[in-house]
Amino acid sequence: MTEFPSLAELRAACFDLPAGDAAAAAAAATREAQLTKPAGSLGRLEDAVAWLARWQGRHPPRLDRVDVLVFAGNHGVTAQGVSAYPAEVTAQMVANFSVGGAAINQLARVAGATLRVNALSLERPTADITMAPAMDESAFLAAVATGYDAVAPATDLLCLGEMGIGNTTVAAAIAAALFAGGGARWAGRGTGVDAPGLARKRAAIDAALARHARVLGDPLLVAATFGGRELAAILGAALAARRQRIPVLLDGFVCTAAAAPLWKLDAHALDHVLAAHVSAESGHGLLLDELGLAPLLDLDMRLGEGSGAAVAVLVLRAALASHTGMATFAEAKVSNKSQSP
Amino acid sequence: MTEFPSLAELRAACFDLPAGDAAAAAAAATREAQLTKPAGSLGRLEDAVAWLARWQGRHPPRLDRVDVLVFAGNHGVTAQGVSAYPAEVTAQMVANFSVGGAAINQLARVAGATLRVNALSLERPTADITMAPAMDESAFLAAVATGYDAVAPATDLLCLGEMGIGNTTVAAAIAAALFAGGGARWAGRGTGVDAPGLARKRAAIDAALARHARVLGDPLLVAATFGGRELAAILGAALAARRQRIPVLLDGFVCTAAAAPLWKLDAHALDHVLAAHVSAESGHGLLLDELGLAPLLDLDMRLGEGSGAAVAVLVLRAALASHTGMATFAEAKVSNKSQSP
Repeated sequence: MTEFPSLAELRAACFDLPAGDAAAAAAAATREAQLTKPAGSLGRLEDAVAWLARWQGRHPPRLDRVDVLVFAGNHGVTAQGVSAYPAEVTAQMVANFSVGGAAINQLARVAGATLRVNALSLERPTADITMAPAMDESAFLAAVATGYDAVAPATDLLCLGEMGIGNTTVAAAIAAALFAGGGARWAGRGTGVDAPGLARKRAAIDAALARHARVLGDPLLVAATFGGRELAAILGAALAARRQRIPVLLDGFVCTAAAAPLWKLDAHALDHVLAAHVSAESGHGLLLDELGLAPLLDLDMRLGEGSGAAVAVLVLRAALASHTGMATFAEAKVSNKSQSP
Repeated sequence: MTEFPSLAELRAACFDLPAGDAAAAAAAATREAQLTKPAGSLGRLEDAVAWLARWQGRHPPRLDRVDVLVFAGNHGVTAQGVSAYPAEVTAQMVANFSVGGAAINQLARVAGATLRVNALSLERPTADITMAPAMDESAFLAAVATGYDAVAPATDLLCLGEMGIGNTTVAAAIAAALFAGGGARWAGRGTGVDAPGLARKRAAIDAALARHARVLGDPLLVAATFGGRELAAILGAALAARRQRIPVLLDGFVCTAAAAPLWKLDAHALDHVLAAHVSAESGHGLLLDELGLAPLLDLDMRLGEGSGAAVAVLVLRAALASHTGMATFAEAKVSNKSQSP
């Protein structure tokens, strides 16, 4: 069991992160140039293979073990009427995951990924962030450690996802705390809140920002104060993956906001991360821009659960199959010379 | 064997096309609303399932038989120095397809699709369009019929792709002939032509447009005069699919230009078509806009061969698995009611 006895020790673990393997990425690029296609013509598929090679530290990379980790949490801020669904839906959906009835069950199966769900103290929602910090230091560190330990060392690719009624509100609060702009910039419709609900959501974010103004300069305190247990666990999992050089597919707005404090501490901390998609949640594209992440897909999805990440796994499988299975120009006796007119 | 004895008879076959099955699409939408997710939260995945249901005429739709048809042809316009590769690469790549070495072989396998390649008289390139019509009427109609007959009646989803050195030039010429703008608007880098090559490509397109100005008002004559055999076959396959109500995934710029004359004859003729992706070829996005087609993917691909369509099949498989496999709110005992704050 990993323990972070204090915020200072967690903060120390967020620096001196291992770099990727440039030689493995170069080996991928060298092979791409020999395959029977115009140079670069598979576009982002080629980039994705090089990224997998870089962070797995081998060429060719593999996708034998792909894990989808979904973390679930409950949020006191739901008392402010910020969601279209009642808070008990979090636990109902966790039960649905366990019997295979949710979207992520189907998507993980199609993607050849193993789904693991981790529900974090659903019976004890975090505090309402308009009134108090979401978590005290020990609750935050415990949730981070839970996520950190959930990452299996032999994983070839890790997909991170979440479930938590109210968590687009706390994600927006984290984004606002890290990148400014307030509720007007960062609040979106979430699961489908109506216009009065959206107004309450914006007001809740602004109230939380005003109440906790003193923590805004400290990214980990922001995560503890505005976040939730599932977001803290995602932060921990993204950090564990980086320390073990496991490539990560982030899902949507909530996952991206959860990992953003790592980037705020070290602008290279998310170099092992690929944004699986840009969701329909309005803050997501803005946040990806802030982090310099270019999403692979744009399918107007806004479900969470790791659903966008699982779809992106399919694109990576296509990319890897092309990379490993194609013939070279020499093997296929295909001309690779420009015509001199 | 289908025969189109004259352009007039082909033209007649391009009208009075069957509509989709609105009831099947409605059944898909009804089920989506009952599944354990916020309404609409799977975005384009939900739209894709309804589209499959509409054109297969059944709910739920199936993806048991997915075909990738790749048509190959050679082009006299390569004499103008418009491509980075010599014309013999077309036949070399067809050989590569036959031994499983190309990107589309790998992508079709990952997508669970059957690849069938149809090389159209590679030893007899079409005429150089700067000098003469690419094909006479009988050669054009024969190529259309080849494509028409290549579509198997039991197909659940048809992916169309192409291979032909020089064919982004003729695709651009078709787009320019149908939608105006000339070589400056429609010519792109194709397989990777250099700046002088791009200038020659633009000039060739403009020369062809000037030479064949009298056909610009007739979309089928445009296809015969500026196109190529593989583009004519794609037009025929897209038409056959529509007449049999088989949904079609179009690949890149060349495929889209090949099918565009059908749209020009009847603005609903491509309602059974989904644009798999928007390619890096500069004219493709412009052409999709002209046709009102919203691409599913944007992965900076520009290979052709049906490669983008095959990747899109994976997204459709994810969509269908979610649609058929998810639990309903009632089955999972998940609350589907808005919270009244």
